[in-house]
Amino acid sequence: MSADKYQDLLEELIEALDRQDKPKVKELFDELHTYDKAQFLMDLTPEQREMFRHFSDENLAEILEELEYDEQRILIEELGLKRTAEILEEMSSDDAADLLGELEEKESAEIFALMDDQEEVDIRKLMQYEEDSAGGLMTDEFITIPDTYTAGDILNKLRNLAPKAETAYYLYVTDVHLNLRGVLSLRELIVAEPDTKVEDIMSERVVSVPAEMDQEEVAEIMEKYDFLALPVVKEEKIVGIITIDDVVDVLQEETSEDIYRLGGLSGSEAELRESSSSAFQSAKKRIPWLAGLLFVGIMAGTIIEQFEATLEAVAVLAVFIPMMTGMAGNTGTQSLTVVVRGLTLGEFEGKGIFQVIRREAGVGIFIGIANGIVITIIAMVWQGNPMLGAVIGMSLMITLFVATLAGTVIPLIMDKFKIDPAVASGPFITTVNDLIGLTIYFSIATYFMEQLM
Amino acid sequence: MSADKYQDLLEELIEALDRQDKPKVKELFDELHTYDKAQFLMDLTPEQREMFRHFSDENLAEILEELEYDEQRILIEELGLKRTAEILEEMSSDDAADLLGELEEKESAEIFALMDDQEEVDIRKLMQYEEDSAGGLMTDEFITIPDTYTAGDILNKLRNLAPKAETAYYLYVTDVHLNLRGVLSLRELIVAEPDTKVEDIMSERVVSVPAEMDQEEVAEIMEKYDFLALPVVKEEKIVGIITIDDVVDVLQEETSEDIYRLGGLSGSEAELRESSSSAFQSAKKRIPWLAGLLFVGIMAGTIIEQFEATLEAVAVLAVFIPMMTGMAGNTGTQSLTVVVRGLTLGEFEGKGIFQVIRREAGVGIFIGIANGIVITIIAMVWQGNPMLGAVIGMSLMITLFVATLAGTVIPLIMDKFKIDPAVASGPFITTVNDLIGLTIYFSIATYFMEQLM
Repeated sequence: MSADKYQDLLEELIEALDRQDKPKVKELFDELHTYDKAQFLMDLTPEQREMFRHFSDENLAEILEELEYDEQRILIEELGLKRTAEILEEMSSDDAADLLGELEEKESAEIFALMDDQEEVDIRKLMQYEEDSAGGLMTDEFITIPDTYTAGDILNKLRNLAPKAETAYYLYVTDVHLNLRGVLSLRELIVAEPDTKVEDIMSERVVSVPAEMDQEEVAEIMEKYDFLALPVVKEEKIVGIITIDDVVDVLQEETSEDIYRLGGLSGSEAELRESSSSAFQSAKKRIPWLAGLLFVGIMAGTIIEQFEATLEAVAVLAVFIPMMTGMAGNTGTQSLTVVVRGLTLGEFEGKGIFQVIRREAGVGIFIGIANGIVITIIAMVWQGNPMLGAVIGMSLMITLFVATLAGTVIPLIMDKFKIDPAVASGPFITTVNDLIGLTIYFSIATYFMEQLM
Repeated sequence: MSADKYQDLLEELIEALDRQDKPKVKELFDELHTYDKAQFLMDLTPEQREMFRHFSDENLAEILEELEYDEQRILIEELGLKRTAEILEEMSSDDAADLLGELEEKESAEIFALMDDQEEVDIRKLMQYEEDSAGGLMTDEFITIPDTYTAGDILNKLRNLAPKAETAYYLYVTDVHLNLRGVLSLRELIVAEPDTKVEDIMSERVVSVPAEMDQEEVAEIMEKYDFLALPVVKEEKIVGIITIDDVVDVLQEETSEDIYRLGGLSGSEAELRESSSSAFQSAKKRIPWLAGLLFVGIMAGTIIEQFEATLEAVAVLAVFIPMMTGMAGNTGTQSLTVVVRGLTLGEFEGKGIFQVIRREAGVGIFIGIANGIVITIIAMVWQGNPMLGAVIGMSLMITLFVATLAGTVIPLIMDKFKIDPAVASGPFITTVNDLIGLTIYFSIATYFMEQLM
């Protein structure tokens, strides 16, 4: 269906809704993709949404799966806890676990009480894992098959199993002890002769991950091997699978976090949807960072104050303050970006940390020399003072070298201590480098003060 | 297979290679996943790689598909153009087209001359699309089925078709005119009774994209609908499909670009693998940006120079220069980050641009007032000069408001003019805001100069 036709469908749907034409609404709504159903529903007023109460639990479960928590919250409140419990039973267990994990203890207990006991056990099992671990991402709706079956047996069995599983594209093969022995893709199954034994066509090279693995690492593995699903194992037994659509979401989420932190924002999940929060809420979230940096800015001021005698004697030195701090911040941000991205993409694996530092140190030397020479000439010509040019040039050269190193070493140290280096964000490195630049600049200028006057 | 076992396998493989035990090498190598095969091969010396020449074209084609262009280049040179042509015939047509597109005109012409004519036509068809468009991402190895067939017919046919297709998980249903009419997932096919007509089980809600669509938009669609593959159509006929693994790569690539540009790096593809280039090459790539910013830093100097009389009269004003420029830069970077990320994720769709600006302006006012009050008190107490405190506070308040707006409006304007706003990178906004901050600060200080002395 083209985008135009889709737009027509939406308009027809809104008209039917305005007319309160229930059968027509149902018919048109069913033609939408689940994602669009969810978006459509959220754009309605609570009164307009009233009609959708009468939809089946399965239908509403699908829609709930597509929504973010704050949107789910709105629907839950409209539907009531009893109906929510019924709908949750129809949801993918991983999505149900995520939703219940976000709710208040009291609310989730109430919902669990209304749910089927077996469902509750299954969901609680998933809820014990950290949200950003492999266990937190996985679903328990996967398909296992005994290694003694034939391809034909399985194709027949699949008719019943496939509709319930999260993905039917990989079948996991287990032995008599129910240990994971291999994997068979649906495609391989179909291509195989019906009387071939599963054992003979399965791949034994099944890559699996432990439930504790961090979601970022999981995403990396799925990306490099181009898997559509990845089994999670515990003591050789398969306990769940992670599907590619969840990994795509993880990639987006982790990236947003990195970008926000580099930009000096907290990167918390709430902030990721910042554009929908109020100006006051946003300001409140950004002010702590800025206030911290305000104090560092004052520290930079105290450095200048210490050199006030130099500055009063050679007032023109003030003219180069913004250039010096600006360049120190910029080169530091460049190094920081390369290092943070390199760490995220795992580019430094295999290479030693010192190799990375040595390389960036080399970059710092080249950058320092090139810019130092340029600014020496400019300062000489502009201010007509060769000695001033030499002092500015030397200061910039050393500052750029040190600032590049700081932009490299600080995130690497944070990473060693298991602190997310993206927290050493752009503004932080910039401000540290301001202090470094000013100290170097005024120290050198003070040393040569007599020649400058 | 666990990570430990995998490591053992790799070690055994290296031993076999050292012993020149060809059959053992082949056996162990075949147990590796394609991605690991490719990595293993690239870690060897050209002499060690000699043995792998004797592998089948299919085997080498798979490996070549996993590699980046600079690595492919190395293998191609070792294998020679004739063998390369044979291997390219076995590669996915989209990967073959990408590789041939990177080669020199002369080389690719030579390879085409050595290839099967039909292969050449197929690949050239793919090469006509922009690299970062839907057409550039798609493969022509998809499966179409006539709408008149039954589920059983198709399952039988698939035995022959599936091995050749890039993905067999979606089957595209066409009518007598070969126009795309619907889609059937492999899972739905298996669940269906064998004598059901395809027409009756297919989904007519097939979302498709035109070949010209930008890859970022394609990724967005696949992400929101959780598709594993997406058909590309031209005049209602399917010309290719895009698979999820390519989209995951696009997401990573586009993100890296955004992050690099925010960090003041060029974000060109070569830069994305910067950590493997030499210090001198990296420095050369970063210097243009820094040199540009050096000149802006000098412009900031000329602003200060214009106010030299003020500065000589009230030398203590210099103490607050780094704080003023630093804060202006930081708040601008925060706004920039929110706006660039919002644009990338399509968060502003539906809302007007002015709504975003109004909100950020609100943020700027709150941030300005809060920080302005704090710095007024600090400056008063520290320097024992109430008037100085008032001037600093007022300047910071106005600067933060203007700087927040600049960090919002500049990327939005760039986006309107179809310039990637991530190019208005962190360093750029920071430097513009330095100029704004200094001008406001010294203008206000000069106005109140007599009261300050």
